[in-house]
Amino acid sequence: MAFEITARDPGSRARAGVLRTAHGDIHTPAFVPLATKGFVRGVAPAEVAALGYEMVLGNTFHLWLAPGHALVAQLGGLHGFMGWSGPIISDSGGFQVFSMGHGTVADEIKGRAPSGAVRAGAVLAVDEHGVRFRSYLDGTEHELTPELAMEIQAALGSDIALVLDECTPFHIAREETDRSTERTHRWLDRCLRWHADHRPSTQLVYGIVQGGVYEDLRRASTSAVAATGCDGIAIGGSLGRDKEQMHEVVGWATAELDREHDERPRHLLGIGEIDDLIAGVQLGIDTFDCAMPTRLGRHGMALVPDPEARWRVNLQGARWRESTEPIMAGCPCPACGAGHTRGWLRHLLHQAEPLAGRLLTLHNLAFVARVMEDLRSGIAAGRLQEVAQALQAGASPGGL
Amino acid sequence: MAFEITARDPGSRARAGVLRTAHGDIHTPAFVPLATKGFVRGVAPAEVAALGYEMVLGNTFHLWLAPGHALVAQLGGLHGFMGWSGPIISDSGGFQVFSMGHGTVADEIKGRAPSGAVRAGAVLAVDEHGVRFRSYLDGTEHELTPELAMEIQAALGSDIALVLDECTPFHIAREETDRSTERTHRWLDRCLRWHADHRPSTQLVYGIVQGGVYEDLRRASTSAVAATGCDGIAIGGSLGRDKEQMHEVVGWATAELDREHDERPRHLLGIGEIDDLIAGVQLGIDTFDCAMPTRLGRHGMALVPDPEARWRVNLQGARWRESTEPIMAGCPCPACGAGHTRGWLRHLLHQAEPLAGRLLTLHNLAFVARVMEDLRSGIAAGRLQEVAQALQAGASPGGL
Repeated sequence: MAFEITARDPGSRARAGVLRTAHGDIHTPAFVPLATKGFVRGVAPAEVAALGYEMVLGNTFHLWLAPGHALVAQLGGLHGFMGWSGPIISDSGGFQVFSMGHGTVADEIKGRAPSGAVRAGAVLAVDEHGVRFRSYLDGTEHELTPELAMEIQAALGSDIALVLDECTPFHIAREETDRSTERTHRWLDRCLRWHADHRPSTQLVYGIVQGGVYEDLRRASTSAVAATGCDGIAIGGSLGRDKEQMHEVVGWATAELDREHDERPRHLLGIGEIDDLIAGVQLGIDTFDCAMPTRLGRHGMALVPDPEARWRVNLQGARWRESTEPIMAGCPCPACGAGHTRGWLRHLLHQAEPLAGRLLTLHNLAFVARVMEDLRSGIAAGRLQEVAQALQAGASPGGL
Repeated sequence: MAFEITARDPGSRARAGVLRTAHGDIHTPAFVPLATKGFVRGVAPAEVAALGYEMVLGNTFHLWLAPGHALVAQLGGLHGFMGWSGPIISDSGGFQVFSMGHGTVADEIKGRAPSGAVRAGAVLAVDEHGVRFRSYLDGTEHELTPELAMEIQAALGSDIALVLDECTPFHIAREETDRSTERTHRWLDRCLRWHADHRPSTQLVYGIVQGGVYEDLRRASTSAVAATGCDGIAIGGSLGRDKEQMHEVVGWATAELDREHDERPRHLLGIGEIDDLIAGVQLGIDTFDCAMPTRLGRHGMALVPDPEARWRVNLQGARWRESTEPIMAGCPCPACGAGHTRGWLRHLLHQAEPLAGRLLTLHNLAFVARVMEDLRSGIAAGRLQEVAQALQAGASPGGL
């Protein structure tokens, strides 16, 4: 078994476990930082590992377009190429392709209100065979199919591959969601078939649950995915218009899995705000990936134990001009440990100096790592509820 | 005495020494990385220190305009503000103000051929009182005077302040150079007077030698600066159209100082290519500052022991696409030590990822630190000539 559940929370669906891959173990529940294009933005692989992370996520779509999966394979696979010797999960690229087409799908999947803006669609056509699109890099035409998504991931040599799914915006009608989910299931079968035929011996494959915001479709999709021989189950697609709906949608999927006594690992795609991590763990999610900690950092935002402010503070603000405060008092991260002040970091941000984004990225990743550590040890100690409440009340993560 | 010469090379004017400041010693000859705006670009202060650097250079002009010297003073002076506890030298801002005005003065002072391009002049007027200019940040008008340059540096709390000088392009006539150099001497007196009246007790002040590319003017300027009570002597201004002329011009100044048995520390402003560091040390320069290692790094260039290629390799080049080579074999720097390959770094550069510039900056600073270490120990061991020849023949720096 690739996944062993080592503890269960009596008060929720949460579980702690160990996910075993060819490149090492991941202690769950775990957050997975993004190395979308073969690097974690601003931070070297050894630094990511030093923060306590055991797995990173690469992206099929981006690595296929640049530098190309053949080159990555030639340079030692994604592990050798990027200098990361631990486990790697690769996203299939479905979300990225369809984000280009729909423009606002990223907003919608993250539970943000639709902006109304529609970007020039780069998706040219979606049919049973796959999805044709125009590259955001050079305008060339490409087609991504379920088989190709698996072939690319085999070349990348990721420890966990994700099947190709069709991602639809959340506001589409039930009927269209139903049709799209059915197609995702057929693509899942094709992915698993390709993988069975060409099996990169140590690579695990996760299916992806779709079904939009419709309970019956989500539950049916969960069942359909669980009925296959995939090694793990990812929850993707449109999770609703806001956090409440997102938690509800995720809960349908994990409830269905629990009902079926499915003990495979579960990954929640693209979700990672602090409250969502807490809620997701309680709903029985094992791993999460999200651009949040790294993206916020690059934009001058630091994670702090302030639930009212969505756990974030904008260090570009004028109020920090004269501040000699650290990013966060008592924080053991490299940026806080060095004594860098908010006033200095604000100056760097105003000078557009990438060092600021890097230091905040280190801080944010360290913050999330401590949150996950607290949740893991909370489950193991049978006191997850207490830990979750402390975090939600604004306690500093780390040894809660 | 702030400066103690501990060894002299019998075959050249080179000397090794210890420069003592309120924030610690600098072992010379030494390279001084730029922290122009209160940070070394891409690299945290503790990392700069870990590479073996003892002093950094802040810039009066830039820090005055943003975030302002009053704010820097309030936040603990430049040391406290930027989190650097070692010695700091502050450039006076003359070069930066006049660079805005003349457009190509930076090219010219660095010994590059004039490009012919003239930027919209931001210097509004230069007269005996000072220099009026329009800020490059917001178009507001400012005047920098010798007294203000010293006042700003007192507020910054640098260990070594530089007097304000007038910088002229290299192609101006002898007569204009003469007039400008005389003004620089009068500004020197005003700077020293301000400093004597307001003396920030532990701050040293360096005068600046001008005189363009005219031997008699350079020698006269050297004598004039040496005749004052300044604590050290910087060589600035236009050093010629090419490296040969630059070495000649620097040689006139240090020869004049040697003739007068002047034992004060000598700083060469804005020079730092590998061959220039070797030549400068042999001409009797103690400290150097230059944007070269950090700027090259940000632009994808790595320093390597290849004199034919000006000690640099462009990692953006297509030839590194499939390379699994490190930046430099056997290099002990953090980037090479982590095993990052040229192929991966090229990918990062093509993705405009700042991590690439940071890793190359770390490598380049580490390279220059080892060059200076070799030159220092060469002088101490009485074998500078041998070390210099080895470096010039393409030996890897470090333990030569």
